[in-house]
Amino acid sequence: MPELRQNLITRDWVIISTERQHRPDDFARHVKKAARPEHRDDCPFCPGNEDETEVETLRIDGDAGWRLRVVRNKYPVLVPEGARVRREHGIFRSISGVGAHEVVIEHPSHATSPAEMSGADVATLVEVYRSRYRTLAEDPRIEHIVVFKNHGETAGTSLEHPHSQIAATPVVPAQVRTRMEEAIRWLDERGECLFCRVLAEELAARERVVTESEHFVAFVPWAALSPFHTWIFPRRHVSSFGDTTDEELADLSRTLHAVLGKLFRGLGDPDYNFSIRSCPTHDGPTAHFHWYLTVVPRVARAAGFELGSGMFVNTAMPEESAAFLRAQ
Amino acid sequence: MPELRQNLITRDWVIISTERQHRPDDFARHVKKAARPEHRDDCPFCPGNEDETEVETLRIDGDAGWRLRVVRNKYPVLVPEGARVRREHGIFRSISGVGAHEVVIEHPSHATSPAEMSGADVATLVEVYRSRYRTLAEDPRIEHIVVFKNHGETAGTSLEHPHSQIAATPVVPAQVRTRMEEAIRWLDERGECLFCRVLAEELAARERVVTESEHFVAFVPWAALSPFHTWIFPRRHVSSFGDTTDEELADLSRTLHAVLGKLFRGLGDPDYNFSIRSCPTHDGPTAHFHWYLTVVPRVARAAGFELGSGMFVNTAMPEESAAFLRAQ
Repeated sequence: MPELRQNLITRDWVIISTERQHRPDDFARHVKKAARPEHRDDCPFCPGNEDETEVETLRIDGDAGWRLRVVRNKYPVLVPEGARVRREHGIFRSISGVGAHEVVIEHPSHATSPAEMSGADVATLVEVYRSRYRTLAEDPRIEHIVVFKNHGETAGTSLEHPHSQIAATPVVPAQVRTRMEEAIRWLDERGECLFCRVLAEELAARERVVTESEHFVAFVPWAALSPFHTWIFPRRHVSSFGDTTDEELADLSRTLHAVLGKLFRGLGDPDYNFSIRSCPTHDGPTAHFHWYLTVVPRVARAAGFELGSGMFVNTAMPEESAAFLRAQ
Repeated sequence: MPELRQNLITRDWVIISTERQHRPDDFARHVKKAARPEHRDDCPFCPGNEDETEVETLRIDGDAGWRLRVVRNKYPVLVPEGARVRREHGIFRSISGVGAHEVVIEHPSHATSPAEMSGADVATLVEVYRSRYRTLAEDPRIEHIVVFKNHGETAGTSLEHPHSQIAATPVVPAQVRTRMEEAIRWLDERGECLFCRVLAEELAARERVVTESEHFVAFVPWAALSPFHTWIFPRRHVSSFGDTTDEELADLSRTLHAVLGKLFRGLGDPDYNFSIRSCPTHDGPTAHFHWYLTVVPRVARAAGFELGSGMFVNTAMPEESAAFLRAQ
């Protein structure tokens, strides 16, 4: 019989339905991705085409040219110029689209991805995430920042060159606010951080843990929303990703690299999204919120049921997903 | 400059970003879909293959065989047998996957879709939705019912034959509960149904109305989450889709048929999802909730930003989407 499981953090009920009897490797890509060239003359993110990108906000140089660049998105969904203006048109509300939308060009090579990069490159990548996060969080017009990556076409990327994105919004998204309220309610009732408690329980249960290190634990959540959905939690209670220490950040890069490597090897370079879920930028350190990173491989597709209810159907047992990833 | 708009019903902020200067017909399908045959011997939903489907829960017969059948899903995410059992494993909660997951085989022809069917066929389809809704709502184990359709591969369908689905869950989805709470808060503060008010404001503004009839209004919401996202609201305040009258139902079928026809003609048979958003089944008629139908054409793809924030980016102005659809 299928089972519904509640995600205590999002409060979503996920239907775990393994009727189709998928084994973990049924989700692997069976047709190998076409090989990409190391360099493409027509790629705006490849070295030599720097003129085709917008304003550069950060660059890390290496011995032979840049190792990583952060630029403004050419088609920004939010722009840094202008005031945060709220308007009311009867009951209809709007706010001017100020904020930031930046692209992190992760590597000079067109043909790589974080799973395939060196550990040093992934360490640089997460340092850049934190650096831009900290800078953008100082802007008083910005209320929330999402660092995310779309890897592969089904994950929503339109450019092959390895890149991630940073979006800084002038509002706290409703979904984030709802989760904050749930976390505050847990703190009220139990006197503890919900996320710390979930982490402790996952470590006690062990069966969904994928990998752990000194400062981070990667696990498939009890109510994973899709096969191989993985959360990376810091062990230390910290509300903002921006407050991660240098030592923790180095450890995060190793854990992220390990998880992405497991997905790459186990599932044949699946498309995936990852994102960092941090507290609203105007919040100080709080007792109720605990930042984390979520990775969702795109091995299944959300459809009308999800749209009509907000519930997900996961066709893999979270424990089996975790066991498969542990073994990679 | 981009603009953020708040959807008062979901509380989501949507970024309206038209930087890429899409015109409405840029979203149209440029490569025509491959023609489908009227009948396929290997299709489990085609006439003659009735043995390949599971238990039939409803059938509408015509002069020459069945016109429409409802069957249990062969790979159900929820099953009708068994008790609703809640379990706790430490802080982890689960509920047995009882409920229903049915498939509505909309037409004997393999090659049609609701946009292309006759008005009489669409009228039968929505009657069947209401009939199954009412029957399933009587099951005390069921707390919420979603009627939905995935049209086309990018909308998540795996079978070509025209069909929709009904999922009846033993829990109220968290997203639905959150929206109920928001609607109750509006009722508290303003003494009115939020949905009735939104409808009145959309009718007063007119610029986002797509089509209207005696009992229904179709409009692109102020904060549409994607291009051509359309809501169909009943004018009368009714919480449950199951309480729609016969006269209203006939009118709903005409409005739905009109909207799907506009999408079909205007965008070249786009993939889409639609779903009916009704109150939890155990709620009686309430002052705060108002059922509606939502149609989301799959002309853009959600990615990591949506995953990381719950916010959507719409690359079309809702007013332009509505004007385009009105003209079809």
